[in-house]
Formats: sequence, structure tokens, C-alpha cells
Amino acid sequence: MNNFILHTPTKVLFGKGQVAQLRGQIPADARILVTYGGGSVVRSGLLEQIRSELAGLTLFEFGGIEPNPTYETLMGAVELARAEKIDFLLAVGGGSVLDGTKFIAAAAHYDPAKDPWHILETVGGEVASAIPLGSVLTLPATGSEMNMGAVITRKSTGDKQHFFSPLVMPRFAVLDPVLTYTLPARQVANGVVDAFIHTLEQYLTYPVNAKVQDRFAEGLLLTLAEEGPKALVEPENYDVRANIMWSATLALNGLIGAGVPQDWATHMLGHEITALHGLDHAQTLAVVLPALLDAKREQKRAKLLQYAERVWDLRSGSEAELIDGAIKATRDFFERMGIKTRLRDYVADANIDTLLAKLEEHGMTALGEHGDIDLVQSRHIYEAAW
Amino acid sequence: MNNFILHTPTKVLFGKGQVAQLRGQIPADARILVTYGGGSVVRSGLLEQIRSELAGLTLFEFGGIEPNPTYETLMGAVELARAEKIDFLLAVGGGSVLDGTKFIAAAAHYDPAKDPWHILETVGGEVASAIPLGSVLTLPATGSEMNMGAVITRKSTGDKQHFFSPLVMPRFAVLDPVLTYTLPARQVANGVVDAFIHTLEQYLTYPVNAKVQDRFAEGLLLTLAEEGPKALVEPENYDVRANIMWSATLALNGLIGAGVPQDWATHMLGHEITALHGLDHAQTLAVVLPALLDAKREQKRAKLLQYAERVWDLRSGSEAELIDGAIKATRDFFERMGIKTRLRDYVADANIDTLLAKLEEHGMTALGEHGDIDLVQSRHIYEAAW
Repeated sequence: MNNFILHTPTKVLFGKGQVAQLRGQIPADARILVTYGGGSVVRSGLLEQIRSELAGLTLFEFGGIEPNPTYETLMGAVELARAEKIDFLLAVGGGSVLDGTKFIAAAAHYDPAKDPWHILETVGGEVASAIPLGSVLTLPATGSEMNMGAVITRKSTGDKQHFFSPLVMPRFAVLDPVLTYTLPARQVANGVVDAFIHTLEQYLTYPVNAKVQDRFAEGLLLTLAEEGPKALVEPENYDVRANIMWSATLALNGLIGAGVPQDWATHMLGHEITALHGLDHAQTLAVVLPALLDAKREQKRAKLLQYAERVWDLRSGSEAELIDGAIKATRDFFERMGIKTRLRDYVADANIDTLLAKLEEHGMTALGEHGDIDLVQSRHIYEAAW
Repeated sequence: MNNFILHTPTKVLFGKGQVAQLRGQIPADARILVTYGGGSVVRSGLLEQIRSELAGLTLFEFGGIEPNPTYETLMGAVELARAEKIDFLLAVGGGSVLDGTKFIAAAAHYDPAKDPWHILETVGGEVASAIPLGSVLTLPATGSEMNMGAVITRKSTGDKQHFFSPLVMPRFAVLDPVLTYTLPARQVANGVVDAFIHTLEQYLTYPVNAKVQDRFAEGLLLTLAEEGPKALVEPENYDVRANIMWSATLALNGLIGAGVPQDWATHMLGHEITALHGLDHAQTLAVVLPALLDAKREQKRAKLLQYAERVWDLRSGSEAELIDGAIKATRDFFERMGIKTRLRDYVADANIDTLLAKLEEHGMTALGEHGDIDLVQSRHIYEAAW
């Protein structure tokens, strides 16, 4: 097991009706900016409920944060936060609203002489202060509600980059599975696949004899594989929603990745596809991952065999057959969730040269747990993903 | 899945050499009281290393905290903490030092007009302030390094009681598996069995469709069952020690118990045995648990069958046989660790009437996840444990 530091101070309020506990989580004298995305929190009545729970407190609102939240949109909220001296942010929505709100939190306190995009360029290293934030989650997927990362897109340049700072880790996360009943099937599927691949990024590398981390990861994978398809056919099954929601948070709150090698090449290759072609984040992951696992089957052999047995119950055949079987089972699971796993399912032309140029521009030339996925191998993976 | 609130802000610094990070975790101007137990941290050189890491800071020391830490001993540290205006406590040792230090933390800030034993009598409900604390753990077992509970014994009355307060949750925990290499076999065994039973207390109840919690619990049980015996024969196997240490922390930091029913009757029955007969904590658990599982086999049927299959790989036979097999496998595991599982292995006379009188005095008359273990059933369990 590798050394690690793990610090997850986010308070989780999980279950039916936990929005009622919101008021107790926020200082009474705070100047609060409630952030949200499109109209779904308006239509569902959640925003109105939150206004009512927080009645009498000083509330501002900023809506319109889009999927793959953009710098261009978020800078409007940064200006508002600065002008109104906001001192608490409440993100209401999914991972995009969370990520966007983390950027607002850090950017509002950033050196006014600098462009806050610099936060992304320095991967959060220069963030010295941030507005405290909390969240009410409506879409289980990214784990952003209990971690210190965020991914932001710059529309004008087609860049999609991430930053990390412990200062933007949410103070609390309200996770009510009932709030996910009305999600469109596509978002449910995206969320499940996103959480599944977050887990794989921290699991399918090479063994370091970290038995607990492995088994926790396998527990999340099994749960997502069992419950994901059920959520599509039984959208109001509380336990199904609860198991998915809790899995998605635990898939990326640091726990299963503590003390083990991590990959994340699928995410890096996927980000460029979203930025260039506009695919949903999870769609890009479902496209890249099977191709990447096949390309790295030698380096990942031991963990792929463990994954085949413990997650997909594959126990007979040669090692090559078991690995093929595990990759196929993974692809089939994504397809069963309704997410296509070939790039050609989404776009007419893959523009691989442009994708590679962007990878290079972003310094993504030594990816994966061994740092051995260079541009040549990335080209091969993109081609195999076609 | 049941609703839950989970808040584990303890920062974990895990791995070889992490004591070197101690200084950065404590305010530079703190008046620090280092607490420890017997002489093992002196003999091992750990105390000296800590003095050296913290050189130049204002340090006081209080040693002699015994296993099953007593109110009588700890009140000496409370007086010292008050007199010296201590504002940070550093616990160096195992669960007893941790628990004792939590009591010192709460008692030093307690209303001076009241006897701090009242903290136990009110189960921590009246703790309004506490000295912040951190720890360097030397014995993986109780999970106290990352939770808000403590168990304290009052020698003069033979009472062993617990309290909880978020204010005594450690700020940080340094977990270096190397520090556990020199533990006596008996303490290693106690620690593994204690962590195993902590997990069972939160797992072997009744199903609430909490798939992640179940699988995480099973992951800890499998890891402890595999690695525990290895630690006895390969005391300097780093990965074995690391897997045990991380399992023990996760067994009782709130994670696997969030959103599921919990039992804890084994602990309550065991505490009385320690208080009366002086058995090690883990010994009492190993004695009570098999008897309790047998007594509650109907109420725990579904989870006992799941446990039989997923932890002990028992797949054939009648339900009764599978449950018998799981209980036997559990008992055999404890014996393999060198811990006897019958009360008669430890004492000549069980004094069951006295144990029951103490249970009644402590209000322990409706134990277990259904609150249906009354004194009659407790008598039956004690008798079966003989």
C-alpha cells in the first residue's frame, strides 16, 4: 500500500427529506448565493423549497450554469459574488453546478489583478482563499459534492481543464435520493457510468496489496452494475436511487483512491472529445475506456483478471479470454445503460489530429498510472475507440 | 437504506514515516500535552522521536494511561491540563490512550462545579467544549482515532461506560504500520478481533438494502480474516500491517454504520465482563459474540446467511447448517488468532448474577438492533458463553 493523506471534512446529510436540515448548516448572518443550472430545479419545486427553508436569510441567486460549466458563464457569478460580498455559496444541482460553484468560490477571492482562468492553468496551486460552499445534489455522478476537484471549460478556446484545492471542498452535501426520481434517463445513465469509471480509474491499474481499497472499489462497481439498469426501469425505487447516489459520492471522495496508483487517462482523453465534439462527459468515457483497457491489457493484467473474477464473476478461460470478457462485460454494461461505446456512434469524423494537438497543448503527453501513454498511444486509443 | 448524517473530519496521515508530518498538524503556539500509556512508547523510541519532531514547541507529558483507562488515573491529567492551560492534546498509543485523551479533552473544559464522571452518565450530551486533540496510533483496534466515542472505566465502582461527542473527534491521526511491528501477539490478536467485531456489530443485523455498506463491511471482514493470522507469523510484513491498520480505522469511523441498523449488544455484555473479571476487551467480545449470534439466529437470519456466503464462502447445506457454519468459522478465526472463546477459559466462576445486576444498573435492558435483548436473554447469552 502506498502512503496517503486523506481528509474528507464534508458533512453528508443523506436521505429522504434532508433538505429540511439545510438551515442549520449555514451561518445565520451569511450572504448566500444560491447557484443552479437550467430550469429543472425550478420546475421540480426544489429551488422554491430551498427559498422557503432559508426564508429570512440574505439570499441571492445565479442560474444558468450549463453542463460542462464554462468560464464565460461563471464569470458573471464571480462578479455578482464580489459585488454583493457573498460569503456562502449553495450549489443546487449536479456535478456541473458543483464544479462551477467551486470555480466561483475560488475566483471571487482570487487576486483581482489576475484572470481567474489562471486557477485552471495552475491546477489550483495558487488558490489561497475561497468562499465556503455547500450543496444540495440532484444528480449522482461526479462525486464533486465531497471532493476538492472541479472541471471547467473555456468556450472561446475549446479548453476543458481541472483544478484542485482543499479550500473548495464543500462544507456539507445534502443527498436526497428522492430528488433524483425525475432525472431524464440519459442523465441517470451518464451518472452511473461516470461513477463506474471514476472507480475504475482508481482500481484498474496495478496491485499494491491494498486489500481494503480494492474491495471497496469492487463493492461500488458491483452495486452500480446491479442498480444502474434498475434505475432506468424503476425510477422511483428509493433503495435503487439511494444505492446509486451513495456509490457515486464514495467513488470519488478520495477513499478508494487513497494509497493506490491511479490512472485518469480515460478522463483526459475524454475531456478533449467533449471540448471538441460536445459529447456528454460520460459518453466520452464509455467510448475511450474499452479501447484504453485493451491497449493497456499487459500493464493492467493482474487487476483486469481480478476485475473479471470479482466484478463480472468470470472464472474460466485463458487469461486473454478473461480479460476480453471483462472488457466486453464493461462495454455491454454501458450499452445496457443506453450509452453507446464507439466514437462513430456520435460523430461523423473523429478529428483525431485535433484531439491530439489539444492533448499536447494541455501537457497530456505522459498519461496513466505509469505515465506511459504518450501521444502515439493516445492516437492508437482514439483510433481504436472509433 | 436508512437516513444518516456522516461527518468524519479527521485528517488521516497514513504510511511509513508519517510521524515526520506531525509538526505541521499542530498550531505552533499551542501548549501541548502528550499523553501515553505504559512504557512501550518510551522503549520503542517513539516518544523520543515525537519530542524531537516537536522540538521548540511547548510540551507537557502525561504517561501511565492504562488499558481500559480509568477515571481515577485520567483525573490527574485533567488537573494538569487545567493548571497548565493546555490547548492541544496529542495521544500517542492505542485505543485506551485515545479514549482516555478524549475524556481529558472534554473533562478539562467541563463545568468545574461538576464531577466529570457526569460526562459518562449523560453519554456526552452535555459536552459543550473540549481541548482539540490529535493522535499517533500504535495499536490498530478500536477505531477511536477517527471517531467521536470513548469508553472509560471507574475503578472504584466497577463501571465501564461510554460517551460520544463530535468535539472529541481527533483533528488528525498518524497511522504508520511500522509502529505496530513490535506489538505483543496478544495485542495484535485483540486488535484484529476487536475490529472484526466492530464490523459485525454494524453488519449482522437485518437487511435494509444498503448494498455499499454491506460490501464495505464484507471487505473489511475478509481483509481482517486473511491478514490477521499473517500478522502473528510475519510481524514485519508491511502490507499485512497496513491492511489491518486501515481496516481497523474504517471499521469504526462511521462509514460502514451509516444508514444501517446497529447491534452493539456484544459490546455492552462484554464491558460488564471486563469491569467485573478484568478480561481484555477483545476477549470478552470473542466470548459473547458466538453465543449472541446463536441466540439471535432467527432475527439475524438473512444477514447471517449473507455473511456465511460472502465472508466464509459457505454455499451448501440447509440454512441452519450455513448459519452454524458461519458462527463456527467466526469462533475458529478468533481461536486461530489465539483468543479463547469460552468464558470458562478465563475465569473459574462467571458471576452471572452480578453481571446482570450491572447491566440493569447501567440501563442495558433492551439491547440489540431490535432492542429485544432484555435481562432474561442476556442471562441466556452469558450462560451460553460459559
